[in-house]
Amino acid sequence: MPSHRTAAVISIGDELVLGQTLDTNTRWLASRLTDLGVRVVEHATVEDDAQRLAALFARLSAEVDLLLTTGGLGPTADDLTRTALAAFLNERLVTDEASLAEIRAWFEGRGRAMPETNSVQALRPESARSLTNPNGTAPGLLATDPRGVLIACMPGPPHEMKPMFEASVLPEIRPPDDRTIVTRVLHTFGYGESEVASRLGELMARTASPSVGTTASTGVVSVRIRHEGEGSCEDAELAVERMAETVRDKLGVAVFAEGSRTLEEMIVGVLRERRDTLAVVESCTGGMLGQTLTMVPGASDVFVGGWITYSNEQKTKLVGVSKETLEAHGAVSRQCCHEMAAGGLERSDADHCLAITGVAGPGGGTDEKPVGMVWIGLASRGMKPDIRCFRFKGPRDIVRLWSARTAMAMLRLRMINTTMKLLGEDADAR
Amino acid sequence: MPSHRTAAVISIGDELVLGQTLDTNTRWLASRLTDLGVRVVEHATVEDDAQRLAALFARLSAEVDLLLTTGGLGPTADDLTRTALAAFLNERLVTDEASLAEIRAWFEGRGRAMPETNSVQALRPESARSLTNPNGTAPGLLATDPRGVLIACMPGPPHEMKPMFEASVLPEIRPPDDRTIVTRVLHTFGYGESEVASRLGELMARTASPSVGTTASTGVVSVRIRHEGEGSCEDAELAVERMAETVRDKLGVAVFAEGSRTLEEMIVGVLRERRDTLAVVESCTGGMLGQTLTMVPGASDVFVGGWITYSNEQKTKLVGVSKETLEAHGAVSRQCCHEMAAGGLERSDADHCLAITGVAGPGGGTDEKPVGMVWIGLASRGMKPDIRCFRFKGPRDIVRLWSARTAMAMLRLRMINTTMKLLGEDADAR
Repeated sequence: MPSHRTAAVISIGDELVLGQTLDTNTRWLASRLTDLGVRVVEHATVEDDAQRLAALFARLSAEVDLLLTTGGLGPTADDLTRTALAAFLNERLVTDEASLAEIRAWFEGRGRAMPETNSVQALRPESARSLTNPNGTAPGLLATDPRGVLIACMPGPPHEMKPMFEASVLPEIRPPDDRTIVTRVLHTFGYGESEVASRLGELMARTASPSVGTTASTGVVSVRIRHEGEGSCEDAELAVERMAETVRDKLGVAVFAEGSRTLEEMIVGVLRERRDTLAVVESCTGGMLGQTLTMVPGASDVFVGGWITYSNEQKTKLVGVSKETLEAHGAVSRQCCHEMAAGGLERSDADHCLAITGVAGPGGGTDEKPVGMVWIGLASRGMKPDIRCFRFKGPRDIVRLWSARTAMAMLRLRMINTTMKLLGEDADAR
Repeated sequence: MPSHRTAAVISIGDELVLGQTLDTNTRWLASRLTDLGVRVVEHATVEDDAQRLAALFARLSAEVDLLLTTGGLGPTADDLTRTALAAFLNERLVTDEASLAEIRAWFEGRGRAMPETNSVQALRPESARSLTNPNGTAPGLLATDPRGVLIACMPGPPHEMKPMFEASVLPEIRPPDDRTIVTRVLHTFGYGESEVASRLGELMARTASPSVGTTASTGVVSVRIRHEGEGSCEDAELAVERMAETVRDKLGVAVFAEGSRTLEEMIVGVLRERRDTLAVVESCTGGMLGQTLTMVPGASDVFVGGWITYSNEQKTKLVGVSKETLEAHGAVSRQCCHEMAAGGLERSDADHCLAITGVAGPGGGTDEKPVGMVWIGLASRGMKPDIRCFRFKGPRDIVRLWSARTAMAMLRLRMINTTMKLLGEDADAR
């Protein structure tokens, strides 16, 4: 059987075309297919319209070997993927009894009877196969069109789609075996994208092989190294590895992780290695630093918790910031940040305490303390506190995310015993 | 001049096609265009390749009146939107002196000299206009092709793209004035999507006008009402308003907001109206509830802060959960949740305190306390505490988000003096 060299990913839903819902599935599927060596040539988004969707199936099935769709498999009248697939295949819809039983069982497992509306979810085009969905009521569909194009339709909710892809769709995909693709991603924090690019210089030329590109996302600048060609896998791995070494040399301590590893995973990992624990005292981030760290399963080994001291009263009451400090310097000051970090360290059993206090905006800024001014402090047992001032640009959510990430970067620098001026840092602020 | 009836949105970047970065711009632009009455017919995503991009400009400019692109305007060698637009227009690139001065000023405002690499960002096709970017170094581009299609190229970072769209692109868009589009979105919390659909019944038929559709996103089920036609604006408004009334009747207290208003904005709004204040005590959510509430500008009027009691020690130390309770019932129990909420209320000056403790997973589940089991408690001055057990499905991030949202929903129900069994609630748990 021929392999699946090219693919298209289709997202289905009025809410997507109208811009009411953010599609995260396409990114995820494109990433999985790219890893497999299947070239994604198009992402398309269409509304809940059986005719348009059937036409899209017709156009794309002439162009690619593999078609993945997400969405439109729900129980309501605007879920039309089943209908469109049947129309494209020129088949009638039949009830899949096994699917129907699974849907009933899903509801029964939750102590409810299956609403009659959900029975449409068990329909499939006659030649198609239903794909089991352990995480929801919408079974997927798998079909092969007369040309041999493989079509997999999966539900829209990511926590239903992803396990279905891995369990039921992936085994059907036959990636090309004559092309070698090796990719590697290094993540940096602390330099801006221009700074990274100028350090990498001609490594980033369009003609370079392996190719090197950068993307920036709220402080994290990622460097992608990619080899695609016909040579042996070993040679490609070696070339990419060599390039990764060169990139590491040029970017030094700013490189904090590789691959899918996030800043927070790295922090939890380094804390765990050192058997250190962390507490937080958050003002303008309102819990974001704690929330981010606890996205990592097992964070409880190293993260004890902390305080959200959003009001001045709570800063005094919960972690002992002195009223005099607040009166003389205000909540957004080196002194307050220092007392927050030291107070949190003293009141917790942790080895480190990170404190954040700043003006996230849009209101609350003054000439002296403009929106985006954020003090971040790190107190650690037996060490001099590290208190820095930053001037972040952007709207409220960006200032907050930048603050939480910079706090993690400061902790990392301390734990690996090094130092670095971080992007946005105002070294002259006192 | 003819109006812009149809549009396509193009996202540019290897990182998007390969699935390394999530595109949020297309959703935002589609939403803005839909609001204006411009019909978005295609979303496309392409890699950083000048030839492919120029070809896409050629194909789409034959199909639509308005082309919006995001990305590929950075300073590095893989930013090729400028080159592609020039190739499509068959023009050479020239330096825009005003842009160059702005880019220099941007760096100088940050106490740095402009790296030489950034000067390419001032290039524009000869007939194009540069668009000012107050939030970054990449100017936008605005061009009209020989057919009269308006092409606007904007930078990829959302906090640069959005203000540029509003200030420099929007004024150039001429929406059709002969078609009436009225949309309305009602947001509900507490019912599942099937339940909402079965309550709405035939209102959701594909042939209904105005049309009614639903989308679900981690507990929030949104009902979209949309009229599109040739009648008068007043008639359309009236029809949509009448339908919204019917939907409200059928869904009752589950409807919590309209339009772009989020659950957290509603909560901050209702607290403010009542002059009430709120504190939080978070375990498995690790700060997410505080983070979510403080996404709302001005949350400091009503949110005092709270505690992240991630470890058992901190539950005892910070909010006074008794060791006996933890030993007898564990941290994920009605008793512990009750003591967290009551302890937080007692130790803060707030009128309400929300507490969350549960098993977010993936590890830590037992037969008795499986992953997804979450206790949420609400203590309010002078009222009986409301402590409920939920069994949420899905991975860690979903369980946590569902928990934070459900906590807000419980607070809302109390503040509007009503009650409702919420989705996932285990009314029998003790």
